[in-house]
Amino acid sequence: MALRVTVYGENSHEFQENHPIKGIYPDGMHEAIAAGIREQLGDAVEVRTVVLQDPEHGLTDEVLAQTDVLTWWGHMAHDKVEDAVVNKIHARVLGGMGILCLHSAHYSKIFRKLMGTSCSLCWRDGDSETVWNVAPGHPITEGVPMVFSIPEHEMYGEYFDIPAPDELIFISNFAGGEVFRSGCTWRRGYGKVFYFSPGHESNPIYHQPEIKKIIGNAVKWLAPTMPSPTYAPGAPNAKPGWWKNGRHE
Amino acid sequence: MALRVTVYGENSHEFQENHPIKGIYPDGMHEAIAAGIREQLGDAVEVRTVVLQDPEHGLTDEVLAQTDVLTWWGHMAHDKVEDAVVNKIHARVLGGMGILCLHSAHYSKIFRKLMGTSCSLCWRDGDSETVWNVAPGHPITEGVPMVFSIPEHEMYGEYFDIPAPDELIFISNFAGGEVFRSGCTWRRGYGKVFYFSPGHESNPIYHQPEIKKIIGNAVKWLAPTMPSPTYAPGAPNAKPGWWKNGRHE
Amino acid sequence: MALRVTVYGENSHEFQENHPIKGIYPDGMHEAIAAGIREQLGDAVEVRTVVLQDPEHGLTDEVLAQTDVLTWWGHMAHDKVEDAVVNKIHARVLGGMGILCLHSAHYSKIFRKLMGTSCSLCWRDGDSETVWNVAPGHPITEGVPMVFSIPEHEMYGEYFDIPAPDELIFISNFAGGEVFRSGCTWRRGYGKVFYFSPGHESNPIYHQPEIKKIIGNAVKWLAPTMPSPTYAPGAPNAKPGWWKNGRHE
Amino acid sequence: MALRVTVYGENSHEFQENHPIKGIYPDGMHEAIAAGIREQLGDAVEVRTVVLQDPEHGLTDEVLAQTDVLTWWGHMAHDKVEDAVVNKIHARVLGGMGILCLHSAHYSKIFRKLMGTSCSLCWRDGDSETVWNVAPGHPITEGVPMVFSIPEHEMYGEYFDIPAPDELIFISNFAGGEVFRSGCTWRRGYGKVFYFSPGHESNPIYHQPEIKKIIGNAVKWLAPTMPSPTYAPGAPNAKPGWWKNGRHE
Repeated sequence: MALRVTVYGENSHEFQENHPIKGIYPDGMHEAIAAGIREQLGDAVEVRTVVLQDPEHGLTDEVLAQTDVLTWWGHMAHDKVEDAVVNKIHARVLGGMGILCLHSAHYSKIFRKLMGTSCSLCWRDGDSETVWNVAPGHPITEGVPMVFSIPEHEMYGEYFDIPAPDELIFISNFAGGEVFRSGCTWRRGYGKVFYFSPGHESNPIYHQPEIKKIIGNAVKWLAPTMPSPTYAPGAPNAKPGWWKNGRHE
Repeated sequence: MALRVTVYGENSHEFQENHPIKGIYPDGMHEAIAAGIREQLGDAVEVRTVVLQDPEHGLTDEVLAQTDVLTWWGHMAHDKVEDAVVNKIHARVLGGMGILCLHSAHYSKIFRKLMGTSCSLCWRDGDSETVWNVAPGHPITEGVPMVFSIPEHEMYGEYFDIPAPDELIFISNFAGGEVFRSGCTWRRGYGKVFYFSPGHESNPIYHQPEIKKIIGNAVKWLAPTMPSPTYAPGAPNAKPGWWKNGRHE
Repeated sequence: MALRVTVYGENSHEFQENHPIKGIYPDGMHEAIAAGIREQLGDAVEVRTVVLQDPEHGLTDEVLAQTDVLTWWGHMAHDKVEDAVVNKIHARVLGGMGILCLHSAHYSKIFRKLMGTSCSLCWRDGDSETVWNVAPGHPITEGVPMVFSIPEHEMYGEYFDIPAPDELIFISNFAGGEVFRSGCTWRRGYGKVFYFSPGHESNPIYHQPEIKKIIGNAVKWLAPTMPSPTYAPGAPNAKPGWWKNGRHE
Repeated sequence: MALRVTVYGENSHEFQENHPIKGIYPDGMHEAIAAGIREQLGDAVEVRTVVLQDPEHGLTDEVLAQTDVLTWWGHMAHDKVEDAVVNKIHARVLGGMGILCLHSAHYSKIFRKLMGTSCSLCWRDGDSETVWNVAPGHPITEGVPMVFSIPEHEMYGEYFDIPAPDELIFISNFAGGEVFRSGCTWRRGYGKVFYFSPGHESNPIYHQPEIKKIIGNAVKWLAPTMPSPTYAPGAPNAKPGWWKNGRHE
């Protein structure tokens, strides 16, 4: 069965009017991200897009229930995302859905809720970035060069206030002197999280081949991996020997 | 300067009336925990206690500002802890305050907020626990046996829905067949977190020498370790070369 | 292309004569392990077996070069494995080959060399084991119950002198009171390592469905994941800007 | 009791003759490192120095038995260090001794043995380094700026073939575009390991205040932390209930 991917885009004001970004992403960033995933994974995925402006941001119970991996790009309007939707996404991640948080999504409600930290960093427009693979055996880096450049990009720099990643995948160098943990994984409940920092809206990041490759790999890696359904969530009172049946009654 | 420790106790209904627990902890569990810390660390600490029933649960801005390490025991009344206070504690941890979460505090608002997961587990009254040290070089295990028993204790069992600990310190065996990651550390922001599961109110856990030793060690380990004050929190815009001064302006 | 798996078996004296173990594994443990992998993964794998008694233990340069994943079971004859072969296996793991170390392989030369520790533990014949999944989102646990039993098994207990695993997958409870980190992963160079402790020769462990499932999952997870071939091993002198070509010259 | 620190220096040919390095370290690098530790920790330490040219490199059984923390700087003569001495150091680390490996010690026998990987990296003379603290709550960073510069230094760059650090403390940016995991910790057995990359012999690195501060902090952090002596090394056969005495007989 194809992996069901939902791409969330903030699709903010600047993407809707006569804005320079329209030249880079004429259909919006979410459509470019979705197209890259389709290009990488072909029939192995079914990709839909949803935007902030949709009712419930497009993330209804039905859509969430049918989503294996959610990707998230947001920047200017994190506070417009409804808490009720964030709570449902959170529950779905703990239940096994993967989530890929891109660039400014470091400050999204869902990422901060999953991390438990402020997720702050420092930033500067107009720098150049070199991305180093420090986890060469990891599926997210399959077929990705050990190093590649993003000639023009916003700087995102340390200290990045995140929990120590379960796996540190990429570290970026900026010409201005900063470094950044630009690719990080965590497990939360039954689900997986990948944060990948490239993706400033003013640069054609999501058209770059290495970036598309990484996002495709990440989507595959984020796919749910479920144990047998023998465990009850919540905090069950456990009868003696309950585990002999592998199941709380 | 002495380490400033604040011991929070839920001090619930059952501790205030004619309850069997009074026989174990006549002054309340919080006073027993505080006494153990004083016994272990002597002049190196100043310990105060606060309870749920105090205004702002005793955790006013002033008290929090003067707290290096906070310990937390709660069970029946997590939902009575005010969100505003939880948010302040969270900010203090990210700023460097250590926090020790004990037993049922796995379900406290502050622990769940720091973890980003459900923190659920399974449990059963009436079992016996053997605690194994799997991090013998860690300061929290200094002078602690590689293994010790708690003859009567509530079972807390896996799956424990927490992020993978930065350091796994103790694993417990229960006679009923379960295991539990009973001692775990995480860093969050500039602060440290230790979760230690022993401490059911019906058993004299906080009078047991090994437990007192571990809590004393943990309080020392949780003490803030601050880098030089050269970093601005938030998400500052970083001028080129700002780091040459080690300081955002 | 099928994943190329090589199953190494010690095939010691006791497996070759009239020994009770012959009743459990009439063709040797290595053939049972190989059969389980074939059963789980079908056409996705090509599995060969090699034994200690083969020249170079069957692990010639050619065989190693054609091995994606190596599994290792040994017990009585670790010291008979030639250092030259161990060094070649080590180099292959750093270059991307996966390795699955089973049961007494905790004391094999290759495992100790990869770990950098003594890999000691304590043990006792005749116990029963309950295996708990503490990494439910991990591919190695796909379709595996959150808990299952091994009614009769040798006890392997902490302290297990290993580096902290990159990922802790399983923890075992023994009826005698011990615990054990029974499933652990590490990355070493471009390769992956999984240690899985069940597998005492006196019990029919490798015929048990959950065990076969886990070993099949592990073999898949251990498959090499190679970055693009743009990096030179060794300690190259790096010309300025070498990374613009993604390649040391 | 004062912490007993032994500083090993390679003290190679170039340090003994009329070499430019003599202008930076007139008494040898080992004496400068030792002086920095004394300056930072005062009466809390007793520091001795040993060199490659000493019998057994100065690391006799007696000296090792009286060493709590060993620091290691070597570059040109790793292969001249005797395997027998390396094996003794290794055993001492597993038994609790801390070890600080500096700069080119990434390629020392003892570091490679502890890591289990090749420890290769890439390098280039003549660059400038900016060191970023990514673990602000860690004792090794106490009083250390969140960022500081080394105006002239050899570049050490990724991919650095090490096991994922237990704790990643520092990441360095090089002006030439590279990054490096320049401060990393691991636990091995009862002992701790810290690798810190600054320290090329052609630059006055060990006279720089931030570097001395970090090395002083690291020495304190590396101090042995011993559990109660209730555990037998090796792979003991464990009698039923042995742990009730906390001791293998």
